Amino acid sequence: MKRIKVAVVGYGNIGRYALSALEKAADMECVGVVRRCGCSEGIKELEGYKVVSDISELGQVDVAILATPSRSVGENAFKYLSMGISTVDSFDIHSGIRQLRSSLMPVAKANNAVSIISAGWDPGTDSIIRALVEAMVPEGDTYTNFGPGRSMGHSVVAASKPGVIKALSMTIPVGKGIHRREVYVELEPGCDFASVEKAVREDPYFVNDETAVFQVPDVGAIDTHMHGVKLERSGLSGKTEGQQIDFNMRINNPALTGQILVSAARAATKQSPGCYTTVEIPVIDFLPGERDELIGKLV
Amino acid sequence: MKRIKVAVVGYGNIGRYALSALEKAADMECVGVVRRCGCSEGIKELEGYKVVSDISELGQVDVAILATPSRSVGENAFKYLSMGISTVDSFDIHSGIRQLRSSLMPVAKANNAVSIISAGWDPGTDSIIRALVEAMVPEGDTYTNFGPGRSMGHSVVAASKPGVIKALSMTIPVGKGIHRREVYVELEPGCDFASVEKAVREDPYFVNDETAVFQVPDVGAIDTHMHGVKLERSGLSGKTEGQQIDFNMRINNPALTGQILVSAARAATKQSPGCYTTVEIPVIDFLPGERDELIGKLV
Repeated sequence: MKRIKVAVVGYGNIGRYALSALEKAADMECVGVVRRCGCSEGIKELEGYKVVSDISELGQVDVAILATPSRSVGENAFKYLSMGISTVDSFDIHSGIRQLRSSLMPVAKANNAVSIISAGWDPGTDSIIRALVEAMVPEGDTYTNFGPGRSMGHSVVAASKPGVIKALSMTIPVGKGIHRREVYVELEPGCDFASVEKAVREDPYFVNDETAVFQVPDVGAIDTHMHGVKLERSGLSGKTEGQQIDFNMRINNPALTGQILVSAARAATKQSPGCYTTVEIPVIDFLPGERDELIGKLV
Repeated sequence: MKRIKVAVVGYGNIGRYALSALEKAADMECVGVVRRCGCSEGIKELEGYKVVSDISELGQVDVAILATPSRSVGENAFKYLSMGISTVDSFDIHSGIRQLRSSLMPVAKANNAVSIISAGWDPGTDSIIRALVEAMVPEGDTYTNFGPGRSMGHSVVAASKPGVIKALSMTIPVGKGIHRREVYVELEPGCDFASVEKAVREDPYFVNDETAVFQVPDVGAIDTHMHGVKLERSGLSGKTEGQQIDFNMRINNPALTGQILVSAARAATKQSPGCYTTVEIPVIDFLPGERDELIGKLV
């Protein structure tokens, strides 16, 4: 069997878990990791891998997994697609997805490559669930409730306040897509908690949500990669009321994102040239193995 | 907007709910109902519809919804696909799906038509969930738990026993894909309950499941269209343990099946000629509307 040649671009949390998932995928191989520094900095898991600063040093690459921040996805995807390398990413700025898709579409097609964008869990697999439950229950309401789990964006904002050493912002679902925030802060000696609390709660990131701030001695001790979703839809199938569907998960956040990126990299090799979101991909294409056997097992 | 011309073939429970769902779909129109008798038998909902015994009497039909028993799906689909009419069905004999797909594939392709088979909820939308959670958590166990809800097949078997006027067999999930059966029977006067109980419990349909039989004065009073699913997967994403996902629904059974058939009829108009199961269809194709707008709303 010819294995799919995959490069991992970026080696933060997502890149690390994507590499780990690649190592378990028998139909794929990691041909190298692309990092700005081009070095492995003594990272144990990178031993035995080529670590480069430019993807062209890796020889043939079928798919690049972009494990870089969302804001640099567009630029990186454009560059690799122009080289004829397919890309997958977990771009998570919901309001920018349509524009990213339309901007990558022509370059993907022109270079006979495939880009699957926003292929994490939300956007990503949650998007597939939202589309599916709407097809099952066309008239109704969908609520996506997140957590409890760490919000990376909110944690960064809380940590930026004067006197804060470390911060953890937890997202707590209170139902119907509304969330409460619990912010845990580790403070510099002598720092006034009340002023930190005020600064956090008045920040635009928090001002619209019910927010509680707590001082703790060690944020690291309570930090976690675990996150969750409860996605609910209720309404009518045809003219029949009372249909109730929900989808729940309790997951290690970067591990799931890394895994979905790897499954999407596989799916990228099975599409016609172009740029796709997850809802545009037949779900079976995310899986390894013969189509007919998968149908026998899963349908 | 040019509406999709749909015929409903068969007018039992599923056909009735499919017609009802079609009436709510602005992008589709029902051009008629095909029944063996070719008559509407005074059925109120069929007023205003052409009811015929042969689909060729309906003029142009884009998609035929086969709301007929599973055992006649193959024959009907073959006939309509040969006429260049696309088909959708809710064929539910899991062990026969691969064969149905491979037998309909050439006739669909040869006649430039599309067949989407097993497009109910299980097989159907549950199949999409099973494929998706496997892509998210490649190593693990999936359990599909049904109920509580009426099993049509088991109800028919229980009703066939001597002395039974009506029977209802409820499927009760006891976890990990294992089910218990509760059978409610309405008996002819003088009929011995103990012998009915024995006959039901020793029938091949029931002999491997824990089965309780109850005599009731009126089965109709406790019968229901409500059914449910709890689909669970737990395992590893990459090398990370502890991932937990579940999908639940509590639904009117024929209403959901009828709706999914209608959504699948829409999807059939967007595929290349061939025969597909639900996992092979991009989920977005089940939905009405412009692709770019749907992406903005759902992804």
